[in-house]
Amino acid sequence: MQDHFAEALTAEFGQDVLFGHDIPRRFYNDWAGLPPVAPRALVRPRTTKQVSAVMRICSEFRVPVTPQGGLTGLNGGARPIEGGVALSLDRMNEIEEIDTVMATMTLQAGVVLGVAQRAAEDAGLFLGLDLGARDSCMIGGNLSTNAGGNRVIRFGMAREHVLGIEVVLPDGTIVTSLNKMLKNNAGYDLKQFFIGSEGTLGIITRAVLRLQAKPTELASAFCGCPDFASLLSLLKNARQRMGSALTSFEVMWPSFYDFMTSGLPHLRRALNDPHGIYVLIETAGRDAAENRLLLEQVLSEALESGAVTDAVLPSSERETRDLWAVRDSVSEYGKLMGPLTAFDVGLPTSKAGKAVEQIEAAIRARWPDAIALSYGHIGDSNLHIVCNIPSAGDEQPHEAITKLVFGFVAEHGGTISAEHGIGLLKKPYLKLSRSPEELELMARIKRALDPDNILNTGKVLSI
Amino acid sequence: MQDHFAEALTAEFGQDVLFGHDIPRRFYNDWAGLPPVAPRALVRPRTTKQVSAVMRICSEFRVPVTPQGGLTGLNGGARPIEGGVALSLDRMNEIEEIDTVMATMTLQAGVVLGVAQRAAEDAGLFLGLDLGARDSCMIGGNLSTNAGGNRVIRFGMAREHVLGIEVVLPDGTIVTSLNKMLKNNAGYDLKQFFIGSEGTLGIITRAVLRLQAKPTELASAFCGCPDFASLLSLLKNARQRMGSALTSFEVMWPSFYDFMTSGLPHLRRALNDPHGIYVLIETAGRDAAENRLLLEQVLSEALESGAVTDAVLPSSERETRDLWAVRDSVSEYGKLMGPLTAFDVGLPTSKAGKAVEQIEAAIRARWPDAIALSYGHIGDSNLHIVCNIPSAGDEQPHEAITKLVFGFVAEHGGTISAEHGIGLLKKPYLKLSRSPEELELMARIKRALDPDNILNTGKVLSI
Repeated sequence: MQDHFAEALTAEFGQDVLFGHDIPRRFYNDWAGLPPVAPRALVRPRTTKQVSAVMRICSEFRVPVTPQGGLTGLNGGARPIEGGVALSLDRMNEIEEIDTVMATMTLQAGVVLGVAQRAAEDAGLFLGLDLGARDSCMIGGNLSTNAGGNRVIRFGMAREHVLGIEVVLPDGTIVTSLNKMLKNNAGYDLKQFFIGSEGTLGIITRAVLRLQAKPTELASAFCGCPDFASLLSLLKNARQRMGSALTSFEVMWPSFYDFMTSGLPHLRRALNDPHGIYVLIETAGRDAAENRLLLEQVLSEALESGAVTDAVLPSSERETRDLWAVRDSVSEYGKLMGPLTAFDVGLPTSKAGKAVEQIEAAIRARWPDAIALSYGHIGDSNLHIVCNIPSAGDEQPHEAITKLVFGFVAEHGGTISAEHGIGLLKKPYLKLSRSPEELELMARIKRALDPDNILNTGKVLSI
Repeated sequence: MQDHFAEALTAEFGQDVLFGHDIPRRFYNDWAGLPPVAPRALVRPRTTKQVSAVMRICSEFRVPVTPQGGLTGLNGGARPIEGGVALSLDRMNEIEEIDTVMATMTLQAGVVLGVAQRAAEDAGLFLGLDLGARDSCMIGGNLSTNAGGNRVIRFGMAREHVLGIEVVLPDGTIVTSLNKMLKNNAGYDLKQFFIGSEGTLGIITRAVLRLQAKPTELASAFCGCPDFASLLSLLKNARQRMGSALTSFEVMWPSFYDFMTSGLPHLRRALNDPHGIYVLIETAGRDAAENRLLLEQVLSEALESGAVTDAVLPSSERETRDLWAVRDSVSEYGKLMGPLTAFDVGLPTSKAGKAVEQIEAAIRARWPDAIALSYGHIGDSNLHIVCNIPSAGDEQPHEAITKLVFGFVAEHGGTISAEHGIGLLKKPYLKLSRSPEELELMARIKRALDPDNILNTGKVLSI
């Protein structure tokens, strides 16, 4: 049986399929930090037809398949399983077309996000999707996880950038739905079923993305507010006055801001006095002066009403970079902290303040030496918390911390995953954010599309 | 059997269920103009639990159910079927919450769109969804058909306004997914399965909608271009220069513009000389003067390059209204034309010019006295065509005209329904826009969620 399967794959792919020890170790894992797993075989198709052939063979032999892209996922969604096939889309990396009239890009799943961004810019347009892993992550992974990132408040999640997809079903059927039109109500919008389902229902092989006009002039400001309620009144007013010109509203609690600015010598405190909470605002406009003026108006109203206690508007690019350096210092935790337990939760905006207060207090009550830092894209209702217990060394109580944090998230009606998805790591906790009826409906859809449970088996759902 | 079913409904709903001749005739039909059908029973629940009870009973007795909202659909999706139950959501018409911090509105499916729009404005916010039937259509119908309308180029289709929904499945299960967060990647995004599926997979009972900042200053211009290629270069430049400030790009072919302006005495021709094609552009900006200036710049470049031959920028509100009156005159066909065959198709933007040329010529070749008018939201790749054959009187050759038009649409890779959906009327033609693999996948999802085929039976798909 095992031989027949290997023979079938070899007959189809020749040297393009690898087995056992021939498989490079980088295909054993993604960025979730779980123990690596060696797959039985690795296939790296060059065409959709080849993806279909893999699925047909694996379906016949009932061998599970793990689709892989840039392997930058943080929850283990692309980690292969023992005895299964890893199917990497990395060789399907062609940008097939940029249509400057429709403002669309048609591309294969293995195109690296940064490459797609640069191609859009070369064509005088702009791809609104952006995330830290831009130079490693691939479009197929971005779409199958419905990636978020830095520009969600303005351009939305990955889903909102997609006009059409091509997908291969578990039985090998190719469904080509490469729609380029903004409006198409001819039957069910099939792409929506696959975006964000983390490769458990089908393998995205190609996509049509919406492009945008190139962004315009940016202005930033850094503010200190007395408390979370004041911050919310600032957000509300900024939204009403600025509309879609509000491109960032990045909040930092003192736990984060004080720790990072005192720990990293290259960071400058923009405001010397301590404040209850800090926020970095960015607006985009067609005219630099007019854009800055609007930001100044909103801030001067906020200073008058007391919503903001102090604010800085940078007067040079260098000063702007300095302000953003604090927010972007999240990649430097390694220099200051031991092993982390990190969270990407979502909370109804109005409840985020209370939730952070409760979570930070509960963590410190249980682990008195804990370092717990809170910050987030609060304009998108997305909160990040990172936690390290110095006294625990390499044996961080990940599970206990997770249960504590998710307990408060569930209590406030939040989500355990705002943008990173569920994969393997968050699967045990999915029931905290989803009702039994929702979970059963997901399982029903999974069973209908993948009756033999061979596609990304064991991820997202337990069925 | 029949008695047991009626008894079960009566036991649950008392006077809130009507049978036979007691059912008001307005529940027999929607706006599609098909022959009316009397349902066996009409239920108008006041709560989600009551919707669930209807579905439980109908599921037990295998009686088909047609969900109904404002009954303004144009393809017969809400027309009841003989022997079936009409389930109107019109009594579930409460706006439950407006959250000004999150900028969301939670409301029941039976709320009229115009009521929701005014409630948003009263709260200092703005609902980006708008369509002609705003004072009759209901949110549940807007979502289940993924309605389009007037602001798609800026705010997207109905789908893009939805953060969460509550849905009742065919077996009566209530799935409450009233998410308010912009980011939530905790498992499959279930709302996407129900939006746009025209009530064939579940009944939407409540929803959370995203609200926007109130819109800002508007500027309009009316242009004559030599031909479709010039119009496209204008669109491309306008998109790149204006980005999301471009809020309308409404194209009128001479067939439409000349016919309407010469037929309706209250319409004024903004440009006296004839042109190859006409377009009404609208931009939105924070500052009236700056907004007008940008529009002037884009137009003066287009005049210089020859993309535009002549243009008018109105200098008063009255002049602006006059410009829009021509585009809005579509509600006055009745005064000028006999019975219509009307189309709502989508075409890749760059192919719309050729397609209109071919369609108008082919119609006139076959029916020499035909009146065929073309116009559309070309910025959204959405084209409307209306056709009347005066010599055919009341016996318009609807089917022959439809086959002719859809033939060209399919040839150019377009969609037979850009915004109106499929319902009953377009079902025979769905295969022109969807591949066998796509249709089979839709059917598979339908069978998984509605195994007894009792929900909006016979609509969208033949299964």
